Amino acid sequence: MPRTVRLAVIPGDGIGPEVVAEALKVLRAAVGDETRFEETHFSLGAGRFLETGDVLTDDDLAAVASHDAILLGAVGGVPGDPRLANANIERGLLLKLRFSLDHYVNLRPTVLHPGVESPLAAPGDVDFVVVREGTEGPYVGNGGAIRVGTPAEVANEVSVNTAFGVERVVRYAFAAASGRRKKLTLVHKTNVLVFAGGLWKRTVDAVAVEFPDVAVDYLHVDAATIFLVTDPARFDVIVTDNLFGDILTDLAGAISGGIGLAASGNINPDGRFPSMFEPVHGSAPDIAGKGIADPTAAILSVALLLDHLGLADDAERVRGAASDDIAGRDGSTRSTSEIGDAIAARLAP
Amino acid sequence: MPRTVRLAVIPGDGIGPEVVAEALKVLRAAVGDETRFEETHFSLGAGRFLETGDVLTDDDLAAVASHDAILLGAVGGVPGDPRLANANIERGLLLKLRFSLDHYVNLRPTVLHPGVESPLAAPGDVDFVVVREGTEGPYVGNGGAIRVGTPAEVANEVSVNTAFGVERVVRYAFAAASGRRKKLTLVHKTNVLVFAGGLWKRTVDAVAVEFPDVAVDYLHVDAATIFLVTDPARFDVIVTDNLFGDILTDLAGAISGGIGLAASGNINPDGRFPSMFEPVHGSAPDIAGKGIADPTAAILSVALLLDHLGLADDAERVRGAASDDIAGRDGSTRSTSEIGDAIAARLAP
Ligand SMILES: CC(C)[C@H](C(=O)O)[C@@H](O)C(=O)O
Ligand SMILES: CC(C)[C@H](C(=O)O)[C@@H](O)C(=O)O
Repeated sequence: MPRTVRLAVIPGDGIGPEVVAEALKVLRAAVGDETRFEETHFSLGAGRFLETGDVLTDDDLAAVASHDAILLGAVGGVPGDPRLANANIERGLLLKLRFSLDHYVNLRPTVLHPGVESPLAAPGDVDFVVVREGTEGPYVGNGGAIRVGTPAEVANEVSVNTAFGVERVVRYAFAAASGRRKKLTLVHKTNVLVFAGGLWKRTVDAVAVEFPDVAVDYLHVDAATIFLVTDPARFDVIVTDNLFGDILTDLAGAISGGIGLAASGNINPDGRFPSMFEPVHGSAPDIAGKGIADPTAAILSVALLLDHLGLADDAERVRGAASDDIAGRDGSTRSTSEIGDAIAARLAP
Repeated sequence: MPRTVRLAVIPGDGIGPEVVAEALKVLRAAVGDETRFEETHFSLGAGRFLETGDVLTDDDLAAVASHDAILLGAVGGVPGDPRLANANIERGLLLKLRFSLDHYVNLRPTVLHPGVESPLAAPGDVDFVVVREGTEGPYVGNGGAIRVGTPAEVANEVSVNTAFGVERVVRYAFAAASGRRKKLTLVHKTNVLVFAGGLWKRTVDAVAVEFPDVAVDYLHVDAATIFLVTDPARFDVIVTDNLFGDILTDLAGAISGGIGLAASGNINPDGRFPSMFEPVHGSAPDIAGKGIADPTAAILSVALLLDHLGLADDAERVRGAASDDIAGRDGSTRSTSEIGDAIAARLAP
């Protein structure tokens, strides 16, 4: 009997639905008969908010959470849309999902695919993974303000870091490094953020003992951005907090040919909650509906989904097909669905 | 009668004393007879800590503060030196000076000098200034931890932002943009750090009304790193918080040929406290004492010092001399003092 995977699909806004359609096409082409995907599509995002005033209700959350995995396109309306001024779709939807579903590993691989142009003159062999913590740090929403709008306003943001939260993501990162080139770089700002930084540093030092084959390195976040443009090939696995990971992965996407190619997984390694896979790019309302968005990042996110489901061979085939397609790109424009079709065709049995 | 400027000189550690010596050489060559620099040299940094156990005493601080301006080389010992394990020279010295002397503008110009190689394939015309807030944000040292070293540890860091602090630096940035290409980009992370981000955004919107000739733009910090490698020429003045400014200016240094060329000013525009000028680079203990450090960043910091003292012509001449020297560099190595001599010679009357 085939295994059934219940997949929650959140196409979202802007180019989200367009790239998700291609990702699903590739997903279906990739898996053999032993796996069947049962899709539930959820209408969530800025569009839904404008219709109903809801961002993510408790019922939505429970329904999404009852699935085995989640594929998300992109969410967010047109910047500056006055009707969205008081809706924070990012916090209310994307971050709410990540936090509620305990996605403590935000996995963001960076590969400079052959044939892709980097803005760097001599990028070298770029192939690393950022393991970004997903449920703590400055993202917890633990801020507040007093006397708002007056000259005496004070606005605070609290970064919360726990041994519980740091240790589990650090251990995941070490395991990832152990299965790769065995190098782990902690990125933080220990000389300024001494309390959070101290916890991260001590945790890495402690877990390192369990992984004697992994070489450990530390960089301040500012220095890490320098190396990402002068010597990105030095990195194998980077482990870092939620905010630093956000910054470093956009930069990593840029040096490897643009976030149009960058995939990500929001992973709950315990399996208590469904993990969520999404391209790093946003909803790009300016090019939405034109059929010109590049679906590659969404397709590479499907590969991460397959990895997560234990279908490593299928994941490798998707990555290979995408990589071959990328290598053959000659600058002529293909539509979103042409790219999806081409990659799916490479997976035909 | 010549004007006397009382200059506190903090050579610091590593290559600090070497580059400061050249910076002073250039300073002396640059100014005419109407200005006399009266130097007081302070022995502060990791070296001093190892000798006396003191980082910056109240007496040190008072003595430094009694000067008209400060020139700092670099502070910090050899990474991993066990004797420094419990001394945070950065917080205890550098940040203590910035906070005590109310250096609320951390000014960091980025110019890709003709002849300098960028790691970017097509950098374009890079010429922007980052106005980094210097006395608030996650740098305030308002953190703490409980149950340290146990599995139940919680470590927090608080970013403190005030209307008072944000408005003054935003106003400074607008004035700077007004005197340049009239474009200001606010960088923050308003979609996640909603309280701090809200304060920054509202403040920029409010001050913008006073500067109708300045075009205002907003970027999330993650997106800003992308543009810094794909289109750095788009920036004129960037205004941002302490931590984002730290990250963006190292990246900015990297794309413009390395932080070996990056100058900075820690400025108290009110003039209540002396402003402090320092290269962005660190003490680089690995190359210290060899006479091979590039003093250009320290020399360009002297130009910022001259600007601050109202000696704009002298500042321009220092920048011109440094720029000419840089343009003539052919990859052959010159010693630290040879570079200082060459730039000083260009300033000879
Ligand atoms: C949209 C935003 C909240 C999000 C983040 O900051 O995590 C995005 O930048 C990302 O990296 O997935
Ligand atoms: C040394 C460190 C505290 C400092 C900072 O983070 O501000 C440095 O990186 C800088 O940018 O001047």
